[in-house]
Amino acid sequence: MASSKLDEVVSLAKRRGFVFPAGEIYGGTRSAWDYGPLGVALKDNIKREWWRSMVVTRADVVGVDTSIILPSAVWVASGHVSVFNDPLVECLTCHKRNREDKLVESYAEKHGDQLPENGLKDIVCPNCGTRGNWTEPRDFNMMLRTNLGPVEDENSLHYLRPETAQGIFVDFKNVMTSSRMKPPFGIANTGKSFRNEITPGNFIFRTREFEQMEMEFFVAPGQDEDWHQYWIDARTQWYLDLGIKAENLRHYEHPKEKLAHYSKRTVDIEYKFGFQGSDWGELEGVANRTDFDLSAHAEHSGEDLAYFNQATGEKFIPYVIEPAAGLSRSLMAFLVDAFDVDEAPNTKGGVDKRTVLRLDPRLAPYKAAVLPLSKKPELQSVAHNLAADLRLNDWMVDYDESGAIGRRYRRQDEIGTPLCITVDFDTLEDQAVTIRERDTMQQERVALDNVAAYVRARIEDKRVRVPQVPVALGGEAWPESVKIAEAGGLY
Amino acid sequence: MASSKLDEVVSLAKRRGFVFPAGEIYGGTRSAWDYGPLGVALKDNIKREWWRSMVVTRADVVGVDTSIILPSAVWVASGHVSVFNDPLVECLTCHKRNREDKLVESYAEKHGDQLPENGLKDIVCPNCGTRGNWTEPRDFNMMLRTNLGPVEDENSLHYLRPETAQGIFVDFKNVMTSSRMKPPFGIANTGKSFRNEITPGNFIFRTREFEQMEMEFFVAPGQDEDWHQYWIDARTQWYLDLGIKAENLRHYEHPKEKLAHYSKRTVDIEYKFGFQGSDWGELEGVANRTDFDLSAHAEHSGEDLAYFNQATGEKFIPYVIEPAAGLSRSLMAFLVDAFDVDEAPNTKGGVDKRTVLRLDPRLAPYKAAVLPLSKKPELQSVAHNLAADLRLNDWMVDYDESGAIGRRYRRQDEIGTPLCITVDFDTLEDQAVTIRERDTMQQERVALDNVAAYVRARIEDKRVRVPQVPVALGGEAWPESVKIAEAGGLY
Repeated sequence: MASSKLDEVVSLAKRRGFVFPAGEIYGGTRSAWDYGPLGVALKDNIKREWWRSMVVTRADVVGVDTSIILPSAVWVASGHVSVFNDPLVECLTCHKRNREDKLVESYAEKHGDQLPENGLKDIVCPNCGTRGNWTEPRDFNMMLRTNLGPVEDENSLHYLRPETAQGIFVDFKNVMTSSRMKPPFGIANTGKSFRNEITPGNFIFRTREFEQMEMEFFVAPGQDEDWHQYWIDARTQWYLDLGIKAENLRHYEHPKEKLAHYSKRTVDIEYKFGFQGSDWGELEGVANRTDFDLSAHAEHSGEDLAYFNQATGEKFIPYVIEPAAGLSRSLMAFLVDAFDVDEAPNTKGGVDKRTVLRLDPRLAPYKAAVLPLSKKPELQSVAHNLAADLRLNDWMVDYDESGAIGRRYRRQDEIGTPLCITVDFDTLEDQAVTIRERDTMQQERVALDNVAAYVRARIEDKRVRVPQVPVALGGEAWPESVKIAEAGGLY
Repeated sequence: MASSKLDEVVSLAKRRGFVFPAGEIYGGTRSAWDYGPLGVALKDNIKREWWRSMVVTRADVVGVDTSIILPSAVWVASGHVSVFNDPLVECLTCHKRNREDKLVESYAEKHGDQLPENGLKDIVCPNCGTRGNWTEPRDFNMMLRTNLGPVEDENSLHYLRPETAQGIFVDFKNVMTSSRMKPPFGIANTGKSFRNEITPGNFIFRTREFEQMEMEFFVAPGQDEDWHQYWIDARTQWYLDLGIKAENLRHYEHPKEKLAHYSKRTVDIEYKFGFQGSDWGELEGVANRTDFDLSAHAEHSGEDLAYFNQATGEKFIPYVIEPAAGLSRSLMAFLVDAFDVDEAPNTKGGVDKRTVLRLDPRLAPYKAAVLPLSKKPELQSVAHNLAADLRLNDWMVDYDESGAIGRRYRRQDEIGTPLCITVDFDTLEDQAVTIRERDTMQQERVALDNVAAYVRARIEDKRVRVPQVPVALGGEAWPESVKIAEAGGLY
């Protein structure tokens, strides 16, 4: 049986240096993954596009970079110390702990969706095989703990942040004061977060160490629902704009009775990863957090975190709209969505299968590859200089002189390089090169002097596609693609 | 008494949103600092310049992004579990721990460089004031610990990385195989690291959470000394090129008898921060780590980490040259070095003092500020559109319409904005704006259509200033500035 598309992507990611298991020579770990030369380039490109669309091109959002380790009081105020728990049960025979809901779930899966009649008494320990020898469920906090300073005691206990959002709330007043911003405005924050997941898995989808891209948008109460819808649309548009197929995206509206303690409404943007059991996985949650966080921090810290408009005398604690994206997860989605197999002509006049990553050129790790047709020094010299010149534009450019040209094309296709530039013997005469496009495989002859401009026109795209204000609050209408996404039934 | 330059920089950094104490509303912490809207821009620009010079523009270096939490076996092999210790003594009265060497040092400072005659018996506890009531010195590991997974036991014990370097060594084979690199080549890695410093302090210089930019360069044994000197020069050149004054840099050669356990030779690049007590602080260490790390990981993991050249049959464990830079520290150095006070004309025909950050335009948070001369809607509209257009070039552009124009210039000067673009009433007639340069305060009239090109010419600088191979190994000679630095007596 052919392996699934997901398996093929994971295998390609490992083989070509996108993602490696962390510490693989020591047996690895499912807690975390390392990004290789291509993976770090792809990840940085995604992060840069997010930052460009959320911060650089917007007059109403500024950025911060907050610490992983904050005072513990932050996590008491946010509710993470008391609420951020999963109920665990421990097997009294082997002392391994398991998530109760997962045990029940997998029992039901094996028994035609039937729940265990006698509860835990029916359930066999997946570790040692003993049936029904369980403790009562106990809460297990998902924050990782560490101790700071020379003495290990209650004062030295600190948590690794489970989200970047709280760093924003804690700095809200400092940012508002120092940057002269006023609602509606946002603060963006990216970086590593940590959660002590009981069952990490699905490649880089669920790990204990992961990377987030979060933004908190502060608005006047009463404008929160319009801004919430605005950010759901804007964030959906971002994935579509960077090439994710509309049929692989959907929105999941959290039922009212299952909303998190801070949320008035939450909509997840999900991607069709094709996991075993359940196809879909969350890429991003867009939540209306109301004034929960700022009020909680105001109460616990004693600081006044209200916005006060000196001109009008107006004073309020802003409501907060939070688009919280997983960077590691979106990288995985971009890889899966770009993965394709089609056919390419071979040297015998027939066709061969080829693997191609149809990544948007803005995300592709290498923008171009320079390929001297042979290892003759005169070709190498032109090719080396061309690659070096192109790199000065801050583009990652590969150089490859090993093997037949067709094989080198395939190597670039499967890592998503948009353009292959071949230096051949004619180049020495006509001062031109052949440039092949990844998706169409069309070739064009381009003068050496024009190569940089040719590449730039094909890989850069600096348009901005989202209005700056919701339609309901007097802003422009949305571009066509968001309308298409909605018509396509994202809800 | 006037406060020191360092105090003024710290105060500016807080007031204008470069750096805030992490969790300040909860009393803050000296363990970590948060970066505000200007700080995150400055930090990203430094990181991008480092990555550009170390990875993007070099054919012989690739990048990775490795995990903060690796299997514990990594830190056993690297020596961090056994060696990465500071001897601590505990006061038997108040049970606070202190670094023994620091206690002795501060005793000597207060007693005319005299060491305590009776050792610890002469030393007073800085916490409770008791004299000489100390435990024997005990080792204190500087790695932060945490537990992964549902059960807290020896298997779940993990460390937060104290350096990004080991992630590179552990991935060495995966990277070499997947990216077809062979020595001499390098692997670069940036990110957060953690050390349980006993005495964090000096602003962002010594913190428990900090950010590094490290590169491991793998070479054939015998070529290590030439490449080591090459990287000392290249890294010095990088700071000079980005505007650090030569008189504020020096090299510190580690004495042979004090070298770290892995090092054959280490040279630190130090900056004259102007700390109390000692002016100089380390920005970056450039070490010849020999084959210590790869050999240790080969031995502990059982993997063959030698490089094997199939063509020649040559096989060796590469020697490693490591330029390890502190990102947080270099940000602090760039701020201190750029800080200046000079005079600017005021409206009364006299001069006022002005504070100006003379940051290299590549590092400046905002590339330009757009300032409408008045709040008239017709000027606001032109100014808003101009700012929005400029932002599409991925430049951070400020917009400020508050207060007198001279005051707005000062606000931009003190955050290092290279160009102020004023939209005035003539603009509506001549479709041109006045652009003022930060350092010279010269003004020029520029057509609206040419503003982007004008800005680009003044803020972008894509040259590469370091040769790709050491002179001793047949490479090009160094550019003039490194020679100047050497002549200026960096040693």
